[in-house]
Amino acid sequence: MTRQLHLNAFIHPAGHHEAAWRHPLTEPERIYDVDYYQQIARTAEAARFDAIFFADGPALRQSAEFNASGRLEPIVLLTAIAAATEKIGLIATASTTYHEPYNLARLFSTLDFVSGGRAGWNIVTTSTALAAANFGLPEHPDPSIRYERAREFVDVAIKLWDSWEDDAVVLDRPGGRYADPAKVHPIDFHGKHLEVRGPFNAPRSPQGHPVLVQAGSSNDGRDFAGRYAEAIFTAHQTLDNAQAFYTDIKNRACLAGRDPDHVKVLPGLSPFIADTEEAAHRLEREFNELTIPRYGLRQLTALAGVDLSSFDLDSPVPRDLFGDAGAVTDNNRSRTQVIAEIVDRENPTVRELLHRLAGARGHRVFTGTPEQVADTIEEWFTEGAADGFNIMPPHYPRGLEAFTDTVVPILQRRGLFRTEYTGDTLRDHLGLPRPDSQYAGRTPESTELVS
Amino acid sequence: MTRQLHLNAFIHPAGHHEAAWRHPLTEPERIYDVDYYQQIARTAEAARFDAIFFADGPALRQSAEFNASGRLEPIVLLTAIAAATEKIGLIATASTTYHEPYNLARLFSTLDFVSGGRAGWNIVTTSTALAAANFGLPEHPDPSIRYERAREFVDVAIKLWDSWEDDAVVLDRPGGRYADPAKVHPIDFHGKHLEVRGPFNAPRSPQGHPVLVQAGSSNDGRDFAGRYAEAIFTAHQTLDNAQAFYTDIKNRACLAGRDPDHVKVLPGLSPFIADTEEAAHRLEREFNELTIPRYGLRQLTALAGVDLSSFDLDSPVPRDLFGDAGAVTDNNRSRTQVIAEIVDRENPTVRELLHRLAGARGHRVFTGTPEQVADTIEEWFTEGAADGFNIMPPHYPRGLEAFTDTVVPILQRRGLFRTEYTGDTLRDHLGLPRPDSQYAGRTPESTELVS
Repeated sequence: MTRQLHLNAFIHPAGHHEAAWRHPLTEPERIYDVDYYQQIARTAEAARFDAIFFADGPALRQSAEFNASGRLEPIVLLTAIAAATEKIGLIATASTTYHEPYNLARLFSTLDFVSGGRAGWNIVTTSTALAAANFGLPEHPDPSIRYERAREFVDVAIKLWDSWEDDAVVLDRPGGRYADPAKVHPIDFHGKHLEVRGPFNAPRSPQGHPVLVQAGSSNDGRDFAGRYAEAIFTAHQTLDNAQAFYTDIKNRACLAGRDPDHVKVLPGLSPFIADTEEAAHRLEREFNELTIPRYGLRQLTALAGVDLSSFDLDSPVPRDLFGDAGAVTDNNRSRTQVIAEIVDRENPTVRELLHRLAGARGHRVFTGTPEQVADTIEEWFTEGAADGFNIMPPHYPRGLEAFTDTVVPILQRRGLFRTEYTGDTLRDHLGLPRPDSQYAGRTPESTELVS
Repeated sequence: MTRQLHLNAFIHPAGHHEAAWRHPLTEPERIYDVDYYQQIARTAEAARFDAIFFADGPALRQSAEFNASGRLEPIVLLTAIAAATEKIGLIATASTTYHEPYNLARLFSTLDFVSGGRAGWNIVTTSTALAAANFGLPEHPDPSIRYERAREFVDVAIKLWDSWEDDAVVLDRPGGRYADPAKVHPIDFHGKHLEVRGPFNAPRSPQGHPVLVQAGSSNDGRDFAGRYAEAIFTAHQTLDNAQAFYTDIKNRACLAGRDPDHVKVLPGLSPFIADTEEAAHRLEREFNELTIPRYGLRQLTALAGVDLSSFDLDSPVPRDLFGDAGAVTDNNRSRTQVIAEIVDRENPTVRELLHRLAGARGHRVFTGTPEQVADTIEEWFTEGAADGFNIMPPHYPRGLEAFTDTVVPILQRRGLFRTEYTGDTLRDHLGLPRPDSQYAGRTPESTELVS
């Protein structure tokens, strides 16, 4: 069979475009209703998407004044969606900076159990400094400290998920033996940030452990991805950049002793789709005209650490804006880079830059006909830039329907995308192996774990 | 209408009896399957129970050798159950000692949203010292410190849930105003244990906030319950003790300025039910004969801090066992009291005591016909000992079915229990008001919450 594309639907309340909630195509009155998300997930599942995905962060990032900023907790929301779907993968974002690994490992393990092996964890270190104040920290830790904790956190989580070997439960009723204690292991983790004894308090979940997903593209982020990630969400504006990133990640995976095919690279793509190019551009303009510059300027500050609020909206963005490293915070360094490249390449006015970012916060917006969207997907996929795409419809639910109704059939006709699921778990969909427990076959340290 | 009983089904993997998993009536091979719990919940809902409930703790409390000790995370599990039910309340246990309030408040808020207002939180401080080692603490904090943090934690959680006033979302599409920032409040909590700025990152949930449930019966626990609890799970062996507890809790609620009718007291009841008394006792004996003394002795140590493993199983428990305060750990002081009273009242052998505790870990086991079970429920309910019961079937799923098929119809015929739900939320079922946001009508501190 031809190499197959992977498609992930990145769900965002009313849509990824920041003004989506104002456009008549959207239904912002439903964004706290479980039915709304279940409907979106069923649309993605009917089109045979690999997974759906929610971003997350433990803080209100923007004033709720100008946007539908509130968000439901994604692990719980995806559990509710699991019940309304059968096959599609369920990827939740959760922060290693602001969780405890024992608690988070349990949430994901249980999602994997109740969904029959469809859980994925998008591992983030949280980029918004606002979170710190919700957790009693004097300040948001630096990225290097956050990644140091993230590495320990993921090591701990995997050890917990592995701590019951797959055959630990023996269920010997006559003999009165439920589990073989030699196959339930304390993890005794002692790190710089974390101390966790274990064992976990549940058996190994259907996938062994959830699929590990990662989205940081900074140097720390890429190191982390090469070592742990089984799928990567990433933001690129151009084929060149995406190819360079793709090659770099596959190399890092090899250097970490991993099969590069077990790291799926999925750039973001936010498509405005219509029957004609002209109609697609008209649709994009409608959304851009609904943006609120005061909100967009704040978003730009949050994304890239620069403040353009003193500039005239119709004057060009200063080309040396990102030349001065002092003006750039170290949050979101990779996103800053994407924005700096847009400025460098397109020389936009402030308003034009805000419109460029309004669509998907620095992810690639593509505007065109279904054939054109399918063409760019095929190009990136066959030219070594992507294993698939993180589809970020500018507006929900209809923006996803436009993609599944018109683009997916083209990709299927071209033999690039499945017409039926061939497995039941997210690992099956992504072509990832089910990992063995790292404790399998080990001599136990003791037969009495806890007294 | 006559005052109505409240019934809660306390779900425990194969049943509350510690040997349940060995008995042919149970299905221990299904205890990690979501279908199993959905089926149990539908049984409880068909009988018009107020709620189902899961205990929890972030540690493997016992070696998995002799019992089905693993457990799924209850908030996620109840979310999966929410999707398979329509009305029944969903109460999850979660620890204030081992969670962060911002994260936990989000999990419960989202459960309340996706279930349409059916969430309840059983607030515990965690009694097992084993948890500390899973969270990098040098030792498990003392009960007084745990309750101090618990009070701050619940104050923070309620403030977070209240931080968006009910009418904060204005959804003004033409005007470009999603929410009124004057109605989204930072909470600026500064406590001894917790510092949380807020605001929350989601609107107020259907019930305003989840129903607050509590289970500690120590003095600290009762103080806490009087101030916060809207329902209380409690363990009593005798009517006298239950009456004294009931009166004490209602008094404490009054003294805290609350309506005592808004604190529902629900003692545990683990019923062995059969057509004849003799058959019911035979069933109980079958379960007791399957117990493993080595396991029971460990459980006793965990529950009451005493070690009887050096005694002959058929010799009497020393009557002064609990006289020596040094032998009693301060974990579970209230449960120790229950056990001390059993020893004092019944003068059991070690084996008999283990059997008494095997049923429900110190909760009341009642063995008899459906009429007899209904009689004791009615007696406690009408004699000022209970507003309802936390039903703890010794074996699942059939032990619950025995109760719903045979006891519930009697209670309904006697006019003590509903035959249809009269509302949609857990607050409706329990007769609890939906609380107003504490910020409603307050002058905002600022109109720009976050920049």
